[in-house]
Amino acid sequence: MQILDGKNLSLKENENLKNELYNYIQTPILAIISIGKNDSNDIYINNKRKACEQVGISLLHFHYDEDIEEKTIIKKIKELNKDNSINGIIVQLPIPKKYDVRKIINTIDPVKDVDALSDVSMGKLMSGNNEFIPCTPRGILELLDYYKIPLESKNVVVIGRSDLVGKPIALECLKRNATVTLCHSYTKNLKEYTKKADILIVCVGKKYFIDKDMIKKDSVIIDVGINRVDGKIYGDVNPNVSEICSYLTPVPGGVGPMTVTMLLKNTVESYKIMNKRDIKKPNLD
Amino acid sequence: MQILDGKNLSLKENENLKNELYNYIQTPILAIISIGKNDSNDIYINNKRKACEQVGISLLHFHYDEDIEEKTIIKKIKELNKDNSINGIIVQLPIPKKYDVRKIINTIDPVKDVDALSDVSMGKLMSGNNEFIPCTPRGILELLDYYKIPLESKNVVVIGRSDLVGKPIALECLKRNATVTLCHSYTKNLKEYTKKADILIVCVGKKYFIDKDMIKKDSVIIDVGINRVDGKIYGDVNPNVSEICSYLTPVPGGVGPMTVTMLLKNTVESYKIMNKRDIKKPNLD
Repeated sequence: MQILDGKNLSLKENENLKNELYNYIQTPILAIISIGKNDSNDIYINNKRKACEQVGISLLHFHYDEDIEEKTIIKKIKELNKDNSINGIIVQLPIPKKYDVRKIINTIDPVKDVDALSDVSMGKLMSGNNEFIPCTPRGILELLDYYKIPLESKNVVVIGRSDLVGKPIALECLKRNATVTLCHSYTKNLKEYTKKADILIVCVGKKYFIDKDMIKKDSVIIDVGINRVDGKIYGDVNPNVSEICSYLTPVPGGVGPMTVTMLLKNTVESYKIMNKRDIKKPNLD
Repeated sequence: MQILDGKNLSLKENENLKNELYNYIQTPILAIISIGKNDSNDIYINNKRKACEQVGISLLHFHYDEDIEEKTIIKKIKELNKDNSINGIIVQLPIPKKYDVRKIINTIDPVKDVDALSDVSMGKLMSGNNEFIPCTPRGILELLDYYKIPLESKNVVVIGRSDLVGKPIALECLKRNATVTLCHSYTKNLKEYTKKADILIVCVGKKYFIDKDMIKKDSVIIDVGINRVDGKIYGDVNPNVSEICSYLTPVPGGVGPMTVTMLLKNTVESYKIMNKRDIKKPNLD
């Protein structure tokens, strides 16, 4: 069994990005909007800040208290859309329920929508004309590519159907000619599906939801879960699957760090789309 | 085995629409744009015209020769967007390859996009916030509803992954809590999937692609295929499945007429969205 080492690959990719950005005239900027108090969000935003600093992307964080009016957030996003120095805009989810999250996200200019969550971005993803692959799905695909694990004609089973992970990874695997099954809380006889999966992608949010009895011999197991229990982090997959599978993403150190790196890569790609002219520093030697 | 009689249901639904529209102040208008010569398209457009006439929707058909410039089509769509009397706009596909079909379709105002093919419409579909369900998927869902065939927790297998049918019907079945598998030309051991399908939806475009040996006992078979061979119409499913399955859509007379009726219903829904004020004739008695 081989570990799909997302931590190591993300460090390599960050290093490449850093070297690439060193030659740029301008520093790409990622703007993050967050609303209300949320400890998990603080951790995620902090990870993003650290990663941005590592590679040389500026992070602008706009935090609002829960008494902020929706129109103020909309106005801020419109300003960020207009500002040519801003390359990526994300809303750290979840936001408090009283806000219309779809309206807020749909305000983001598709070129800067590096999480690819607006209607236009999702539609482009569905028709296969997308600028960006959402960060977690892209992180999974790059891990599979790095370890030369092909998707074509493979039986891919995705558990979980969120807009952020389940649905987009299903569509991207489909685009790469995998046969794809989407399972979820209403699925009956889940084991019958997971037992046949060449590649099993688990994004459920329950500690050790998948056990070695549920998987196929020599399969590839992608664990997207990040479950905090008593201060420790656990995946959706019991590590005992390593007795059966051929590849496994560890938690932590698998999909998580790849997701953050893909946010950086998407931001740099937006930068490139926005600056189609020569973006390298002039050679003054 | 029971036939899912799309012809009969579509006639009923058309009758209901006719009665509803009789009370409207204005006649809803559907605009169809077609480019180049295409015999199949002529047949489809003719069917749509007849159905519109039956229920009291006006159809405006703009046909262009293949030497038309793309910007002229874009300009026409923008005019139709602005015109408050136009409720639905569709581009009859396929159009000649030299045109940027995504650009043309993305010009359609989402409120009038009754085929739900623009990026915004597809994105809304993916996130479950859609105004319209594309016509063929909606036709399939209404047939299943009419015959009281539930989708929740069912194993649905879709063969074919087009933007018009395969992907949207998969997403809609997912929304109704079915477990959904998308199969296609790269799927290996197709029979292993079809044999387990409670509901099998076939949109492949090959005469009798599915045979009785490939299906599950008492399953529901939805045949979306319309294959013209020597002037006759055949489905994607061999009628011999009727020995094994519990329900089957015939071809012709199954999904086809439902699709046309759903185009009418989506147009009327757009009319309602556009005229949120009272749209019934004043009672002058």
